[in-house]
Amino acid sequence: MSMISVTEAVARLRASSQVLVGSETVDLRAAAGRVLASDVVSAINVPPADNSAMDGYALRRQDWHGPDQVLEISQRITAGTPPLPLTKGTAARIFTGAEIPEGADVVVMQEKCKADGRSVLIEVVREIGGNIRPKGQDIMQGATVLKAGHRLRAQDLGLIASLGIARVDVRQRLKVAIISTGAELVEPGETIKPGQIYNSNRYLLEALIEKWGFEVLDFGITLDDPKIISDVMARASREADAIITTGGVSVGEEDHVKAVVESLGHIDLWRIAIKPGKPFAFGDVMGTPFLGLPGNPVSAFVTALVIARPFLFDCQGISHPDIVPLRQIALFDIKGSPREVYHRIRSGSDGAEIFTQQSSGALYSTCWGDGMAVQKPFEDIARGDVIDVIPYLLFN
Amino acid sequence: MSMISVTEAVARLRASSQVLVGSETVDLRAAAGRVLASDVVSAINVPPADNSAMDGYALRRQDWHGPDQVLEISQRITAGTPPLPLTKGTAARIFTGAEIPEGADVVVMQEKCKADGRSVLIEVVREIGGNIRPKGQDIMQGATVLKAGHRLRAQDLGLIASLGIARVDVRQRLKVAIISTGAELVEPGETIKPGQIYNSNRYLLEALIEKWGFEVLDFGITLDDPKIISDVMARASREADAIITTGGVSVGEEDHVKAVVESLGHIDLWRIAIKPGKPFAFGDVMGTPFLGLPGNPVSAFVTALVIARPFLFDCQGISHPDIVPLRQIALFDIKGSPREVYHRIRSGSDGAEIFTQQSSGALYSTCWGDGMAVQKPFEDIARGDVIDVIPYLLFN
Repeated sequence: MSMISVTEAVARLRASSQVLVGSETVDLRAAAGRVLASDVVSAINVPPADNSAMDGYALRRQDWHGPDQVLEISQRITAGTPPLPLTKGTAARIFTGAEIPEGADVVVMQEKCKADGRSVLIEVVREIGGNIRPKGQDIMQGATVLKAGHRLRAQDLGLIASLGIARVDVRQRLKVAIISTGAELVEPGETIKPGQIYNSNRYLLEALIEKWGFEVLDFGITLDDPKIISDVMARASREADAIITTGGVSVGEEDHVKAVVESLGHIDLWRIAIKPGKPFAFGDVMGTPFLGLPGNPVSAFVTALVIARPFLFDCQGISHPDIVPLRQIALFDIKGSPREVYHRIRSGSDGAEIFTQQSSGALYSTCWGDGMAVQKPFEDIARGDVIDVIPYLLFN
Repeated sequence: MSMISVTEAVARLRASSQVLVGSETVDLRAAAGRVLASDVVSAINVPPADNSAMDGYALRRQDWHGPDQVLEISQRITAGTPPLPLTKGTAARIFTGAEIPEGADVVVMQEKCKADGRSVLIEVVREIGGNIRPKGQDIMQGATVLKAGHRLRAQDLGLIASLGIARVDVRQRLKVAIISTGAELVEPGETIKPGQIYNSNRYLLEALIEKWGFEVLDFGITLDDPKIISDVMARASREADAIITTGGVSVGEEDHVKAVVESLGHIDLWRIAIKPGKPFAFGDVMGTPFLGLPGNPVSAFVTALVIARPFLFDCQGISHPDIVPLRQIALFDIKGSPREVYHRIRSGSDGAEIFTQQSSGALYSTCWGDGMAVQKPFEDIARGDVIDVIPYLLFN
C-alpha cells in the first residue's frame, strides 16, 4: 500500500463526489450560510426608478440660464412618496433617495442653492443626469445576480432583499453522521478511569460540520465491538447523507471499523502523505459515502479540514474554489519529510511562529495559534523562507 | 464639523466601550462561537498517564540484552483497559493509546518484533521513553489553556472536551437592536409602489450580527415619524444592549433620528473620512449605546464591518486583535481622495480586480467579489502597486 499525495487524495474523493441533497425553499432571514439551489434572477430594476443622490432641487437643465436663475418650488418630494410630473420652469425640492419627477433631468445639491421656501436661487448646475442615480444602476431587470451553488453571506441576503425576494431556493442541509469509535473514550463530565481518555473528536467535528452549514447526526461513542459498530453504521447509512468516523482505521488488530464497512459496502484504506493524519479510509456503507478519519485529535482535525471538507462541500452542492494559502516568513527551521506536513503556527507581524509540540495527540497545538504552515514533501523550511500558511479562518 | 479618520473613529468608539453582558454556563456542544467569560484551566493531565505511541510491545529497557532477545508476553493491553504492573523479565503486548504498565519504560514497534503469541523476539530497542507519550504531554494539570475573552472555535471545543469539561462559562450573547428608518422602505415579498425601495439593510445587518454571535432584536422598519421613532428607540434601549439604526442621520431635514436620540440621550454626528459611509452617528438612548449607520446599503455594510464591529466586539467581551490586511497586486488605477476608500474587489492569482460600479447604492458590488481594497486618503493606486486587501472572511 503506497502513499498517495494530499492533492491526489482530494482529487480522488472529489472525482467520486456528487450532490447528495435536494432543495427546499426557506425564508430569507433563515438563509444565511445556506447554499443556493438555483440562480437568483432579478425581476426588477434596482433602483426601480431614477432617484436623487443628494438633498437638493430637481429641475429641467434647460430651465436654468445662469448663476442668478430663480425658479419657483412647485413640489416637495421625499423618499417613498411618488412625485408629480415637474411643472415646466419650476424646481422640485427633493431629498436623497427620492424619485426624480417626470420632466426633471438634473439635481442640484442644496449647498449650491438659496431657497426661501417658495422659490430657489440656483447658482450652478451640473450636466444632464447630474446627481441622479439611474433606474437599474445597481441591477438590471433579468440579470442573474447569484448563481446556484453559492453559499449565502450577509451581503448576499441584503442583495436578494433589495430585489424584493422574500424566499430562496436552497439545498437541503447535508446530513453528516458522526461516529466516534474506541473503548477508551469517555464523555466530558464523566469520571475517567485509568486507561481511558475523554472524547474530543466528537465536539471538534460537530462544531466544524455545523460551521460548514451541514446537519450533524450524532451517533456518539461506539464501542470496539463489531456487532455494535455494524448496527450503528447501518442505521447511519439510512439516516445520513455521509458518515464520518474517527479512529478504528489503522492497521492494529483492535480496529473493527474496517471489517464492518467492508461487510456492509466497501472500504479503501489510504496511506495519505500527510502529517498529521496518515491513516484515512474512504468507502461506502450500503451506498452512503464513508470517511474514516484518524483517531488522534490533531490528525482528525487536519484531515477534516484538508481532505474531508472539499468532498463534503461537493456533496452539499457548494461551488467552492481551492483554498489559496497566504505567503508568510517562517520564524523556524524544520527539515522536510516524505509527507506533506501541516505545522500549527501563529501569525505575527514578523512572520509565522511554530508551536513547539507538534505531536498528533497534542490538540492544544491547534488552539494555541491561528493557522497551519504547509510544508511540501522533502522540502526543508529555513528561518526567513517565504512559506505557505493557511489561517484556520479560510476553512470556513 | 471636520472629518475624522477611520482609525480615530474606531479608537473613539472603543475608548468608550465596556463589556455590557454578564456570564452564563452552557453545555460544550452549544458553545461554538461563544466567548469565554473565565479562563479554562485544566484539572487533569492530558494524556492522564503515559501511553503507547505505537502498536507493539512494552518492556523494561534493562530486560533487553541484544538483537536475539526473546521475552515472554505476560499481558495484553488495549486502549481503555487498565494494565497490570509489568512482570519482571517479560513484555506486554500493547496498542496505540493504551496505558504503559507500571515498570515498563520503552515500547518497541511491532514491525521490529517477531511474536508467536506466547513470546516475542525483539530485534532493536530505542532509549528509555521511546514510543511512549508521557503523561501531561499535551496539557499539564493546572495550566490555563484558553483565556477569558476567547471566542470558541471547533478545535477549542475539542480541547475543552479533552480536559473532561462538559460545561463552560461564557458571556451572555450581546443583544443588538436593529431599526431601519425610512418611509420609502418596503419589506421583500410585498408589492412596491413608485418611490419605494426594498429594505435590504435589515437582512444584511441581521446576518452579520448573528454571524458575530450576537442576538438580534429586530424592530423592523420605523416610519420617518418622530413619535414612532421615539417609542421604538425607548423600547429598544430597555430590551437591548446596543442599538443600531440605518438611515436618518444625514443632515437632511427629513431625518428625525438625530432629534429623537438627542431628546432621549445624546448623539454625536461624525463625518468619518471613509467612503462609502461618511455620515455616522454615535451616542446613547437612555444609557444604551447607539450606532447610527448610513442608509445606503454599501455604506451600512462597510461601516458595520469597519467601524461598528470592533466596538460591538468590545461590548461582547471578545478579545480581538486588529484585522491585518493582506498584501495584493492592484489590477486597477484609481486616484486618491480625501477619504479612506473601501473598494469592493475580487482576488485572483494575478491580483485584485475592482468592481466597476463603486456607488454606495450598488450592493451588488459587495456580492460580486470576496473583499475590499483599502485606499488611504490622498494615496493613488496604480496598476501593479502592492495594496492592502481585506477579504470579507476576515471580518468573522
